[in-house]
Amino acid sequence: MSDVTITLEQLRSHWQGHRALTRRTIEAFPDEHLFTYDVGGMRPFGKLVGEMLRMAVPTLEGIVTRTWQSAGRTAPVSKRGLLTAWDEDTARIDLLWPQIPQGRLQEEDVAFGQWPGKTWWILMYVIDNEIHHRAQGYVYLRALGIEPPAFYER
Amino acid sequence: MSDVTITLEQLRSHWQGHRALTRRTIEAFPDEHLFTYDVGGMRPFGKLVGEMLRMAVPTLEGIVTRTWQSAGRTAPVSKRGLLTAWDEDTARIDLLWPQIPQGRLQEEDVAFGQWPGKTWWILMYVIDNEIHHRAQGYVYLRALGIEPPAFYER
Repeated sequence: MSDVTITLEQLRSHWQGHRALTRRTIEAFPDEHLFTYDVGGMRPFGKLVGEMLRMAVPTLEGIVTRTWQSAGRTAPVSKRGLLTAWDEDTARIDLLWPQIPQGRLQEEDVAFGQWPGKTWWILMYVIDNEIHHRAQGYVYLRALGIEPPAFYER
Repeated sequence: MSDVTITLEQLRSHWQGHRALTRRTIEAFPDEHLFTYDVGGMRPFGKLVGEMLRMAVPTLEGIVTRTWQSAGRTAPVSKRGLLTAWDEDTARIDLLWPQIPQGRLQEEDVAFGQWPGKTWWILMYVIDNEIHHRAQGYVYLRALGIEPPAFYER
């Protein structure tokens, strides 16, 4: 075990820590700005969170079941709806996580039939994409004069 | 090895992939905006890159040597200076990486005498902080009417 970088449980906890921070970022947005406000012509934060929701559980389901299904998920269009979906997915991730097959993160796969790579990379891409777009939300909040949640708290 | 999530070499490659993207983001900034332009009263991108430089190699040196030294690094104040420092650190990371002691990422430590945790977490924090602040740079670029580099290219 001495060559271990990050255990599977640590990776789950790392992701859920980021997800808790993203949840606080959603909460910090005023309802009226979540789906309308942007800087530089980029997507409003509510749309970016919709993308995160469309990626997270479907990716984990693909890793667990080796079947990739993205269809059927429509993102909520209200703050309450986003937060409810977020919490449902948080529970779903904790439920699915122990079902990741042994050694699965080192297997090659093609996520959603489009993105080839080892599944650890696909999973890290989802986490990194969340960090990336959440940071965009931080700038929107600052531009609106609102203090974003502390980055170092998870 | 079947319980491996991410190997040490994959983690190096993952980080260097992000660093290559951050380098392209620095390159995309016009000289005159790098240390002056901001949105919402946040730090200009050049300052954020300075923070990344102050964190990256000193953290890896702390992980490799078990000695934490942040003093003595002053961040460059020009685009050319940032890119040169970035490239030097990219080479330094590749040089230091194989010197990470066996099992070290699962050891507890206190980074720079201030931040306690397992060293994998400290390292991931540095990577996540880079993703977070680079995304801020993306918003600045868009607000300046400049297309940022593609997020999915590493």
